[in-house]
Order: sequence, then structure tokens, then C-alpha cells
Amino acid sequence: MTSSYDVIVVGGGHAGCEAAYAAATMGSQVLLITMNMQTIAQMSCNPAMGGVAKGQIVREIDALGGMSGIISDKTMIQFRMLNRSKGPAMWSPRCQSDRHAFAWEWRKTLENNNNVSFWQDSVNELLVKDNAVYGVKTMMGIVFHAKSVVLTNGTFLNGRMFIGEKTFGGGRTGEAAASGLTEQLVELGFESGRMKTGTPPRIDGRSLNYEAMEEQLGDTKPGKFSYSDTPALIEQKSCWITYTNQAVHDELKTGFEKSPMFTGRIKGLGPRYCPSVEDKINRFADKDRHQIFVEPEGKDTVEIYVNGFSTSLPEDVQLRALQKITGFERAKMFRPGYAVEYDYFPPTQLKHTLETHLIANLFFAGQINGTTGYEEAACQGLIAGINAHHTVCEKDPFTIKRSEGYIGVLIDDLITKGTEEPYRMFTSRAEYRTLLRQDNADIRLTEKGYKIGLASQQRYDALVEKQQKIAELTDAIQSKRVKPEGINDWLTTQNSSPLRETATLRTLVKRPEITAENVSELLAITLPDTTKFNEEVVEQTVIEIKYEDYLLREKQNADKLDRWENLSIGTEFDYDKLKALSFEGRDKLKRTRPSTIGQASRISGVSPSDISILLVYMGR
Amino acid sequence: MTSSYDVIVVGGGHAGCEAAYAAATMGSQVLLITMNMQTIAQMSCNPAMGGVAKGQIVREIDALGGMSGIISDKTMIQFRMLNRSKGPAMWSPRCQSDRHAFAWEWRKTLENNNNVSFWQDSVNELLVKDNAVYGVKTMMGIVFHAKSVVLTNGTFLNGRMFIGEKTFGGGRTGEAAASGLTEQLVELGFESGRMKTGTPPRIDGRSLNYEAMEEQLGDTKPGKFSYSDTPALIEQKSCWITYTNQAVHDELKTGFEKSPMFTGRIKGLGPRYCPSVEDKINRFADKDRHQIFVEPEGKDTVEIYVNGFSTSLPEDVQLRALQKITGFERAKMFRPGYAVEYDYFPPTQLKHTLETHLIANLFFAGQINGTTGYEEAACQGLIAGINAHHTVCEKDPFTIKRSEGYIGVLIDDLITKGTEEPYRMFTSRAEYRTLLRQDNADIRLTEKGYKIGLASQQRYDALVEKQQKIAELTDAIQSKRVKPEGINDWLTTQNSSPLRETATLRTLVKRPEITAENVSELLAITLPDTTKFNEEVVEQTVIEIKYEDYLLREKQNADKLDRWENLSIGTEFDYDKLKALSFEGRDKLKRTRPSTIGQASRISGVSPSDISILLVYMGR
Ligand SMILES: Cc1cc2nc3c(=O)[nH]c(=O)nc-3n(C[C@H](O)[C@H](O)[C@H](O)COP(=O)(O)OP(=O)(O)OC[C@H]3O[C@@H](n4cnc5c(N)ncnc54)[C@H](O)[C@@H]3O)c2cc1C
Ligand SMILES: Cc1cc2nc3c(=O)[nH]c(=O)nc-3n(C[C@H](O)[C@H](O)[C@H](O)COP(=O)(O)OP(=O)(O)OC[C@H]3O[C@@H](n4cnc5c(N)ncnc54)[C@H](O)[C@@H]3O)c2cc1C
Repeated sequence: MTSSYDVIVVGGGHAGCEAAYAAATMGSQVLLITMNMQTIAQMSCNPAMGGVAKGQIVREIDALGGMSGIISDKTMIQFRMLNRSKGPAMWSPRCQSDRHAFAWEWRKTLENNNNVSFWQDSVNELLVKDNAVYGVKTMMGIVFHAKSVVLTNGTFLNGRMFIGEKTFGGGRTGEAAASGLTEQLVELGFESGRMKTGTPPRIDGRSLNYEAMEEQLGDTKPGKFSYSDTPALIEQKSCWITYTNQAVHDELKTGFEKSPMFTGRIKGLGPRYCPSVEDKINRFADKDRHQIFVEPEGKDTVEIYVNGFSTSLPEDVQLRALQKITGFERAKMFRPGYAVEYDYFPPTQLKHTLETHLIANLFFAGQINGTTGYEEAACQGLIAGINAHHTVCEKDPFTIKRSEGYIGVLIDDLITKGTEEPYRMFTSRAEYRTLLRQDNADIRLTEKGYKIGLASQQRYDALVEKQQKIAELTDAIQSKRVKPEGINDWLTTQNSSPLRETATLRTLVKRPEITAENVSELLAITLPDTTKFNEEVVEQTVIEIKYEDYLLREKQNADKLDRWENLSIGTEFDYDKLKALSFEGRDKLKRTRPSTIGQASRISGVSPSDISILLVYMGR
Repeated sequence: MTSSYDVIVVGGGHAGCEAAYAAATMGSQVLLITMNMQTIAQMSCNPAMGGVAKGQIVREIDALGGMSGIISDKTMIQFRMLNRSKGPAMWSPRCQSDRHAFAWEWRKTLENNNNVSFWQDSVNELLVKDNAVYGVKTMMGIVFHAKSVVLTNGTFLNGRMFIGEKTFGGGRTGEAAASGLTEQLVELGFESGRMKTGTPPRIDGRSLNYEAMEEQLGDTKPGKFSYSDTPALIEQKSCWITYTNQAVHDELKTGFEKSPMFTGRIKGLGPRYCPSVEDKINRFADKDRHQIFVEPEGKDTVEIYVNGFSTSLPEDVQLRALQKITGFERAKMFRPGYAVEYDYFPPTQLKHTLETHLIANLFFAGQINGTTGYEEAACQGLIAGINAHHTVCEKDPFTIKRSEGYIGVLIDDLITKGTEEPYRMFTSRAEYRTLLRQDNADIRLTEKGYKIGLASQQRYDALVEKQQKIAELTDAIQSKRVKPEGINDWLTTQNSSPLRETATLRTLVKRPEITAENVSELLAITLPDTTKFNEEVVEQTVIEIKYEDYLLREKQNADKLDRWENLSIGTEFDYDKLKALSFEGRDKLKRTRPSTIGQASRISGVSPSDISILLVYMGR
């Protein structure tokens, strides 16, 4: 049975779903091949989306026209804006998701896209000719042809799970591993490696004593991820906080000699910032407790996710240790935590489009690029899907610059520096993070998404309207002069010093005591009609005014950086002809094949003098 | 990690869910161990519950206090009462289910039962001592103890799937097989065999042309399965009917030489009454078309189930043949049909309680007993679950007689006659089917379910009230005398001959022209206050009046049969001491170990004279 498609996406995880959705929405005929149609968009680990830097990514995906934000909004059971007390660059939306609903919502979304077809099967071979991919072959022996192929295999390639001394083949608990692809890719010249990740045990919520824990409520006014008109969250579920203690640690230690991590049976490196609990008590031996977030798995299930307790110790040790946590005395497990080791491909083998250097029309996205996290996977899927479509219609590569979004930072980091351990996004990775805020992702990216036919007209119109409103409000704040009589009473109530003479509203807005909480009141008192400015508009405007100078400086820096970013080298550049390059510099340049001088300058081993030589050669 | 429970249920299919629910509701601490908590109550094949004889079983499960009826009601998307045009013994409720919702609803139901615990893992060993089971061991190496164990492994034991010449290990598409148990059971002295079943390809509903098919609507007044107050079905989805044709058959035939069935690679016998489409065109070569039901898989998915097109031919043949069906010209497959071969245990090794003869406290239920169908599996699970609980608290065995329900017929058939091919229920298997109607399952069984603590007080009260109302209405109809003037006009409109003189309402009700459709009108005209009698009461009463003589005769026959049914032999009876028994008779009696003379009389190979010898010995 041979059928032809424009784009084949292998794997229906977070990366695969965004890739399929994007390419299909832009007009490609897409075939999504995944091992089990019932696990489309399955969250392998924590039932949550967003968080620090990750929430920004979800908003960027949304701004570009991807679906992770909308689906998160539709299926969340709790929302919190993290880091509200810090500057707006740090504000990070995070939701607790209904695991089951999230997956089903993605499946419905894809089913509702007429350009997405489905095939349930496992791909174990790529069809390659003249260094270009032209299709895949499945376990059932079926051949499908396509103009481009996106691989998003997650943790499934030669996946192997570990619990204590036991080990089983599999990509995720209860699911088989995928074989064949790594072997073929290595044969084709790709480098591959092993990484590992882990997940905590799942608990029966009915067996917990919540009274002994601290309740963590959602925000009183829950926000959302999407800039579109997704419904507001009405009913929120609480999470709970508790802590490990010395007894828990002692219990865990009894399992160390059987730990697959400590005994060296797992070779792959795990995520530094999502360490297993045994790792934490090992590495931070002086800490006498670690925080545990007790998170519901959904609206109507008793299953509980024990965030902070990822482990691959023997299951009896897991249970005994758990039961020593306050509130967990009578805890029942549904299944133990485990670690999974899987193949990945060092991402320096990729272009900014996520196409591989070696094989044309072949894209890699998600966990197989050495990342960890749904958001990191999803945004790669989106970019790979867009470019897979662009390949089909011979359009220009679509990329996002480091100064435009976290997505740009993520991909540039990966392909330029590679990663030795599972890569997770942090705000600190973005040099211009004050520009890359969760509140302005639409302003940064929606036009780009719209121009390529991914973000809808509606989204674009909403953006234009929002920008007009921001301009209008900025003007109003700028020109409004406030008299002391009209405002001093209110200022006093806000612990802000009274005005001595008439001042612009702008100076008041800039005061540190004027925050997201009370600025609307200030505007309502001082401006004639503020009802036409919704919260988002106010937030944006106020941030831009408050941080004006700072943002301007950042913008200038970014523009400077952009000059190098715009100096294209071309991935096929022949470095051998530049004899003056350092030995290491040439080697790294040949290996990474940077597309711009900017990217070249970030490759470790490429020296400033190498860059000068390149610049001279390019006539700069 | 060792934990102790009262009852362990292995497998979360239809049998396992009912077993766990029943034992837990009656008070046992139950551990449900299943390979994947996300596939609890997964419908492996058609998204439908009920149908001829199967619908009756669902109502019986409901009457006893099981959950299949309630869950079907809550998740159905279409309801039809089959065989309405035939006598009421043939009326069979059937619904189209939302596959996804059905499974999730079961999971929620079990989660809401505080006596049910869960463990996700695969059992591969039973713990047996002195011919009694006392626990299980899992793939993860974990030991759980229990006073009784119910095995409900479905098609997973050494499951192997076939598509054309390809074959893969697995219990169901995308799911692993289970190994170890069969081997151990055979070691313990059990006989095992192989059976097979198959499923059709799944189709993308967006690729079908419904205009070329016949629409099959649900009933205008949809009924339901449960006697409890489940909500009425409001929004129904249609199914569609189309047909195979000569071109389809010719296409299918091109795959015959690669068919795992015809080439003998599948050894197990398949379900005679759910044959594969290749079987149908092979066996009924003169039929130039076969009916195909095009059934939606749920409320909000485009996935389509092609009922009548089960096949394990090569997938390219499947697709080409499908595309020759009217309306399927552009059909896209999500996945091909396949056959699965699995281990079963000839059910003559069981008692009426579904406990095994060989190993005490070990129960078998569902597909592993050689049956096919969700309903058949579910009702066995219910009986096994009840008896597993009774074992725990040393209560009497709970069984259902052939004259009390289809469930009784099913279990008695299985354990007495065994089955060479997947056993499916039919009305013809029940000798007293006129007594075993879908309308009176509550009257037959709810009291039994109530007495053992399974059916709730509420259910029982509802039954008592219903019976009072039936008695009241029966009396009213019996005593009411109708004058010609009052009724003749109406009778004429119903094409029923006018009365010449006053008659009892009873004689009118008995007229064949008076049917379920118009009887309420007749009652409303003739009786003072009929609003207090709901539809169910009217239906019951009228059926009992209409078929009075017939039902009475059946009842007498059943009572006669019951006399033998009540003559207990005891499963440990020593047949060797009755020298006069025929050689074959003794052999079969020893093997089957009937619990009553009635059961003994149904064993093939046991002659009437063997029965006489037994009766003489027992002093009858
Ligand atoms: C046990 C576990 C623990 C984790 N813990 C963490 C954590 O603590 N923190 C964190 O940030 N992230 C964690 N993750 C990672 C997170 O789940 C992933 O980053 C994210 O799901 C990756 O998305 P993806 O789309 O790349 O792959 P996945 O979500 O893994 O999806 C891959 C999909 O591809 C399909 N597939 C694979 N191979 C084939 C094939 N050959 N043919 C057809 N289909 C195929 C699979 O069926 C699956 O649907 C964990 C993952 C696992 C499994
Ligand atoms: C491909 C296919 C086609 C079918 N076609 C038809 C048909 O045409 N008509 C028809 O009437 N019926 C058909 N059936 C049968 C129908 O699905 C079954 O009769 C019914 O599901 C049996 O229910 P069950 O509870 O016995 O087993 P299942 O529904 O199979 O459930 C078994 C459960 O046990 C779990 N399990 C198995 N082994 C272990 C273990 N060792 N440890 C832990 N958990 C375990 C599994 O994960 C699963 O949850 C088909 C089944 C399949 C798979």
C-alpha cells in the first residue's frame, strides 16, 4: 500500500502534533504516523504546561498560530502566573492540565484539520535516495512517500525503562519502544547518543491526607496562554505542598545500591534541572528536606502526580520512602516511578529550520534533539512543520531569531552549541529576555505567523487592533496632565507620595508603587474612558512605559546583534579555502555549518579572530 | 513490595471491571492489576453494546447491580431496540457507544469505588500452594497477596496479531501480549487452547461519501439498558449502511494466498458468527453482496468502524477492496484490520461460580473462557467477582440458573459443554427464552443481587414499587369492563373489530392489533388514572397478559427442569464407585464434575441411563 503525501510526521507527541498541525494548516497534505492513535499528545510526565521560560514558549507557539496554548487553555484545571513579584520579564504562565482531556483535545484538533491524515503504525525505516528522504517504511511493511519527513520520536528510539535492578524495553510505561531508525541514521552518517529521563510514581489521591499539607490555590484571576478568545478558566483544582524529610532520605538511601543510576547501568545523562529525588539527596546532602508538589492528574480522576519525586529506585523503596512523607503515610501507588533511556541525535547536525545537514527534506524535532519538556518539544515541532511545508512548496526557510523569541534561542542554542544533557529552557539562556516577555509574544511573532499562512486572519486583526489600542493608551498617558487635587487622596491610599504640582500621568505610571494591581484604578481616575482598553492592552502599555529606557537599550543591543545575525554565510560554505582560520575554529565551523556570522560567533571553539577572518573574507 | 488484598483481579477489560466493581461493592478490598491504566475497559473491536441476546445480558448485569448498563447508558450515541417487530422475547436493546467515553466512564466508576485499588503492571505468575492460589507476581517482580484471584486476560495471553503475511506479538493493536501465565497454568494441570478473532480496519470518516449510503437512525424514542435512573439519550448519531459487491470480493480474493487464515498460519478457531469478510465470501460464494454497517466511534471523532469487514488480509488488499464499496471510493484507513490469536482455557475446567476445579480461590472470566463479546465477558466477570468475594467471606456460591437468565445459560453451557470455537450468546441457546426477556431482567434478578449486597437498596425499592404497580395495573385491566360505546370508535381507527357487547379490558389487551405502540392509548381511554403507570410498568403488564398462557407453560417447564437443577451432586462426587455408569459417561462426568443432576444431563456423552443410575443412587 503506497500513498503519497506532502509531509509525513513520525510520532504523535507534542512535537509531532504541532508539526502536523502547522504543515497541514499552511496547506500541506500531512500524514501523521504514530504507534498508537490513543496516545496522541500523551503527556509522559507531569500534567502541566508552561512554567518559567516554558510558559513564554507556549505563548510564542500560540502567537505564531500553533495549538499548544489553545489546548492548554481548554483543558487546564489550575492556572498560576509564576514570579509575579519579580519584573515582567520573569512572569511565567503555568497551568495544571487534565492529562486525559489534553490528549483528547489535541486528537480532536488534528481530526478537525482536513489536511491531516492518520496512520497507526511504527516507522522503522526512512526511504533515502541521493541524500534526500522521500518517504518511510513501517513495521507493517507499508511504504508511504512524501516530499518531507519530520521525525519526532520522543523517548521511544531503543527506549529502555529502569526500576531498581529491573529493566524493560519500552518508550513509556505500557508502550513499546521503536527500533530500526537510529541504526539506519547512524548508517547514513548521523551521530547518536543516549540520554535519560525519569518520572515519579503515580499515587491514589484517596490515600493521601491533605490536611497535613499546604494548599496551593490557583490565581484568583486565572490568566491563560492563548492570545485568541479561549474561554476563561472557571473551576480550579488545588495542588498541595509537602516535603521530604530525613527519614524519607534514609529510606531512599537503602535503595542506592540497586539504583540503575548509581550503579552505572544507565549511561545516558539526565535532565540537570529535573533531577530524580535520589539525585537530589545525593548531590545536596546538606539539605534536610525537598519540596514536593502534589498535583491532580485531572478534573475527574483520583490519580496524583508527585512532582519532585522522580525516581528509579526499587519500587518497594519508593513506596516505603513515600509513606514517610507528611500526608503520605497511607499512600497507595498506582505504579512506580521509573527512568527511561533513549537515543537522541546531537542537534548540531541540524539547520535553523531543523532540517538535517546530511539528508535533505528530513527534519528532527523534540526530545530526539536532546531537549526535555513538552514546550521545548512542541515549539520545535512547530518550526519543523512550518519548514517541512516550506520545503514542499519551495519557499524560504522560516526561522526565529534569538532576539525575537525563546524559540529562536532554543533552536540556535541546540544547533550551535549542541547539548550534552537534556536541554531545558531557562530565562537566563536568553540574552534579551526583557524583550522576550510572555505579554508581548503576539507583538513579536503573530505577524510572522500570519505572513506564512499559519496564524489566522482573525488573530492578525486582533493583533493590529491591540497595537492601535496600545498606541492610543500610550498617547493618552503621555499627554494627560494630572492635578494634585484630583489624585492625591488616592495616591496616599496607595502609599505613594502626593503630587506637589501638576504632573504627566506618565510619571505616575512609572512610579514603582504603581503595579499591575492598582494601575487600572489610576487610569480610571485620571482618563476619561478606559473601558475600551482591556487588561492585556493596559499591561502591555504600562510595561513599555515603566521599563522604557531599559527596553530601548536592550532593543539597541539586539539590533546590533542582528547585524551579525543577518550576515549570512550559507551552510555550504567551504571553510578549507580560508587557510588563516584556526585549526579548531575550522573544524567546529565545518561541523556546525552556521548559517550566519552571528551563529558562528556562538560556536564554542570559534575564536573572535576566526570571526574577523570570516568578516574580512565577506568584505566587511 | 508485598501487599495484601481480599481479591485481586488481573486485567481491566470488561470482565475485569465488572469483577472488581462487584467484589469491591460487596465489601472486599480489591486490587485491579492491569497492563495499562489508560486502556481500562477499552472496547477492542466494535464500539457498541448489546444486540440480540447480548442486550438481554447487559440488562441482567444491570439488574444484579453491575455497571455495564449504566456505563452504556451514559456514553451511548445511538440506541435501537432490535427485533421490535418480533415477539417480546426477541426484543434486544443495542447501543452505539462512544468508545473513548465508555472506557473513561468505567475508569471513573472504579476510581469512585473506595474499595478498588489499582496497580499498572503485567501479572506473569500465580502464587499457588496446596492447590490454592494466594497471590500473584508481576513483570516488575512485585508480589501481591490475596484470598482470591480472578483472571480476565482477554486476548492477551501469548497474543499474536496477523495482517497478511505479517505477524507481531501483542494482545491488541499497539499493546503488548502477556506471557508466563498460560505456561504456569498448563504446568499446574490446566488444558489450554488457541482461538482467534479479528477486527476491521478503522477509517477516516471525512473520506466517506455518506450520500451514497443508507442512513440508519436511532429509535425515535431511545430506550436504555439500566433499570436505574440513568439519563435519557438526547442527541443521537446515525449509522450508515452499504454493501460489498462482486468487485470488492474479487479484490479481496487477490489476497487469499497471503491470508493467515487460509494458509493455516492461524490455528485457533474464530467466531462463527462474527466471521471475517474473507470467510464470508469464501463460505457463501453464492452471495453477491454482504451488508456493511458504517458506525461512528464516538461523539466527537471522525474515526469510523466498518462493521462487517473484519479481515486479516494484507493491508493493501484491504484498502483496495474497501475503496470498491459504494461510498468508500476515497476511503482513507487509520489502520488495517487484523486477526489476533490467543490462549484460552476450555471452560469445562470451571465450576458454576467460575472458580477452577483444579486450584481453589482461582477464578477465570471473559475471553479466556473461550467466549467472544464484551457482554459475555462482562457478565462472567460479574459472577466471578461476586464469588471471589463470597470465597473471601466464606459465603455460599452465587449462581444463576438457566431458567433465571442468559447469564445462567452462558455459564452452564460453557462449563458443561465447553466450546470449540469462540462462544457467543444467542436467544436460541436459552430453552426458556420467553421467560428471559429484556423487559423483566429486574424482576428475575434484582432481588438476588440485592440479597448479596450488590444491587443497592434504591434499586430494590424501585423494583418493589414497580411490581406493586404491575399488580395494580394487572388488576385494573382484569376487572375493568369496557362498553362498546366507549371504545368502538377508537378500535375502528386501530383496525380492530368493534365490540358487540361489554367485554373485559383484558380481552382487548390480548388482541394482536393492540401493540406496544397503541396500548397506552387504550388504557388512557378506558382506565381512570394511567399517568401513575410508567412505560416500563405498562410494557411488563401487557406482555404478561398477552402471553399469559404461553408464559405459564414455559414457567411450568422451567420448574420441572429446576427440580433436577436442585438435585445437587457435589463437584467432588466419586463416580468410580458407580460401576454401572457407561464408560464414556463416567469419563465425562469426572472431567466436567457437574454440580447438579440437571447439569449432568446436559453433558454430551452422558446418557439418560447414566442419569437414572445417578438418580437411583441418590435415592430418587
Ligand atoms: C518517563 C518520562 C519522564 C519524563 N520526565 C520529564 C521531566 O521530568 N521533565 C521534562 O521536562 N520532561 C520529561 N519528560 C519528557 C517529555 O515527556 C518530553 O520532553 C516530551 O514529551 C517530548 O515530546 P516529543 O513530541 O518529542 O516526544 P513524545 O512525547 O515522547 O512523543 C513521541 C511520539 O512518537 C511516537 N513514536 C515514537 N517512535 C515512533 C515510530 N518509530 N513510529 C511511529 N511513532 C513513533 C510515540 O508513540 C509518541 O507518540 C519525560 C518523558 C518520559 C517518557
Ligand atoms: C482484535 C479483536 C477483535 C475482536 N473482535 C470481536 C468481534 O468481532 N466480536 C466480538 O464479540 N468480540 C470481539 N472481540 C472480543 C472482545 O473484545 C472481547 O470479547 C472482550 O473484550 C473480552 O473482554 P475481557 O474482559 O475478557 O478481555 P479484554 O477486553 O481483552 O481485556 C483484557 C484486559 O486484561 C489486561 N491483561 C491481560 N493480561 C494481563 C496480565 N497478565 N496482567 C495484567 N493485565 C493483563 C489487558 O491489558 C486488558 O486490559 C475482539 C477482540 C479483539 C482484540
